[in-house]
Amino acid sequence: MRIARFSIDGNVAFGVVEGDASTEGGPVLDIIKGHPFAEFERSGKKIPLSKVRLLPPVLPNKVVAIGRNYAEHAAELGNDVPEVPVTFFKPSTAVIGPGDPIAYPSFSSELHHEAELAVVIGRMCREVPRERVKDVVLGYTCANDLTARDVQRREQQWARAKGFDTSCPLGPWIETEIEDPANLGIMCTVNGEQRQLGRTSDMVRSVEDLIVHITEAMTLLPGDVVLTGTPAGVGPLNVGDEVAVTIEGIGTLTNKVIKRG
Amino acid sequence: MRIARFSIDGNVAFGVVEGDASTEGGPVLDIIKGHPFAEFERSGKKIPLSKVRLLPPVLPNKVVAIGRNYAEHAAELGNDVPEVPVTFFKPSTAVIGPGDPIAYPSFSSELHHEAELAVVIGRMCREVPRERVKDVVLGYTCANDLTARDVQRREQQWARAKGFDTSCPLGPWIETEIEDPANLGIMCTVNGEQRQLGRTSDMVRSVEDLIVHITEAMTLLPGDVVLTGTPAGVGPLNVGDEVAVTIEGIGTLTNKVIKRG
Repeated sequence: MRIARFSIDGNVAFGVVEGDASTEGGPVLDIIKGHPFAEFERSGKKIPLSKVRLLPPVLPNKVVAIGRNYAEHAAELGNDVPEVPVTFFKPSTAVIGPGDPIAYPSFSSELHHEAELAVVIGRMCREVPRERVKDVVLGYTCANDLTARDVQRREQQWARAKGFDTSCPLGPWIETEIEDPANLGIMCTVNGEQRQLGRTSDMVRSVEDLIVHITEAMTLLPGDVVLTGTPAGVGPLNVGDEVAVTIEGIGTLTNKVIKRG
Repeated sequence: MRIARFSIDGNVAFGVVEGDASTEGGPVLDIIKGHPFAEFERSGKKIPLSKVRLLPPVLPNKVVAIGRNYAEHAAELGNDVPEVPVTFFKPSTAVIGPGDPIAYPSFSSELHHEAELAVVIGRMCREVPRERVKDVVLGYTCANDLTARDVQRREQQWARAKGFDTSCPLGPWIETEIEDPANLGIMCTVNGEQRQLGRTSDMVRSVEDLIVHITEAMTLLPGDVVLTGTPAGVGPLNVGDEVAVTIEGIGTLTNKVIKRG
C-alpha cells in the first residue's frame, strides 16, 4: 500500500494511491479516514493524483541519518568504511516534499545529491531487538540527503552541512509493502542523466542493524525517519537542475534546485 | 521575569515565578493566561512553587549545540579552538526537566557533565543579522549537555554520544531579563562539590555570533534552544550522583543520575 500526504483546496489529508501511470485516467488517491500511524480505513472518496499537491509523506520529529554505509561511496570521498555507523541528525526544518524547491545554500558552493532509502518509523520504540525491527517500521520512502560538501569538509560536525533548510526531500509516498528492503535498486538522475545507481544489498549495515544501533541510544517516535546511506556517484547540483531519486518498488522523488530568494 | 512550565493535578501550565527562597512563604507561580511565546498576561491565581512539579521550561523542536566554545575546555580534552564553531544537534527526545532523572546510557561507561548557558528562541527566524539577535531571543535557562565521552571518541558524529535519551536537562525556568548574556557566572557541582566554574565572558563566540552562524543555514522555531558550550572542568558522573548547573541571574538545574531501568 502506498500512503501519500497531500493538500487540496487548503486541506491536508492522507490517501492511499491506487493505480499508476498505466491506469486508465491515471492514478487516484482514496482518502483515508483516521491516521495512517493508527487505525484507519479508506473512505472510498477518490481524487485523481494529478489534482493534488503531494506533501512530505510524513513530518518527522527527527531524521536520523547514516553516513558511509555503502563501501564504494565511502571510497569515492576517500573515506574508509567506519567501524561504527556514522550517525547524525537532520532537523525537521530541513524536510520538504516531492516537487518542492531545494534552495541552494548561500554559505556553500558545492551542493551534492545523495539518493537514499528512507525508513519511516510507525511506533514509538527504544532498544528494539533485531527480530522486532519489522514491527516498528511503517514503510519506506525515497530521500535525498543533500549535502554542502565544502562545508562538510570544513566543519567537524555536520549540522550545517547536512541540516540546512530544504536539505531533506522526502517522498513521494510511504510504501508499506516492501518485502525485502535489502534488495532494492536505487538511482539518482540529474536532468534525466543517471548519476547514482546501486542496490540496497550493498549496504554495509542493514536496516535492522541501523535501527538496533540508533535505538540503543534514543527513542524513535512515530513519523521519525531513518536515512540509510547513499551509494557511489554523488556529485554537484547547480541552480536550475532537476534531481530525481528513484527506488525500486517505491517511486520517484523529484525536486528542482533554485537560488535562495 | 522568570517563566516556568509545570504540572499540577495532571494539568500543564506556564507561570511567572515571584519571589525566591528568602520570600516569606516561599516563591509562588502566577499562572499565565495565553502562551509565553505569544501574548499573555498573569492571571493573579498563585500557587506555591513547592506544590508543583517543574517541567522542561520549553519543549524544543530541535536543540542546536556548540562544541569547544571555551578555550580552556577545548584544551582540557586536547582540542584546539575550532576555526568554525562545531555545531551539532541534540534531539527533542533528549530533553528532560529539573529534577528528572538522567538515565546512565547502557552503551557508555564514561558519562560526563557539561554545564551550559541555553538560549531559548522566541520567534521563527532565519538569517538573523547580528543586531536583531536580541529580538529573536525569549530568554535564557540552564542546560547540561550530557556526553558519553567514550562514545564521542569512538564515533565520528555525535548523534549517539550527545543525543541519547535524558542527555539534555533544561531548566529550571526561562529568565527573560538577562541584561548581558556575555557576563554571567556558570558553575557545575556534583554532590555539592564544585567541578566547573567559569564566566560566559570566556566564550570564544558570543550568543550573537552563534545565532548568526546557525541561522545562516537553518530556520529556528519558537521554543528551539541553542546551547553555547561548556567551560573547563568537565568530568565523570556515576549512578547516584546529583549534578547541578547554576547560572548567575537564572537559577539552578538539578538532576540525579540513575541506572536505566
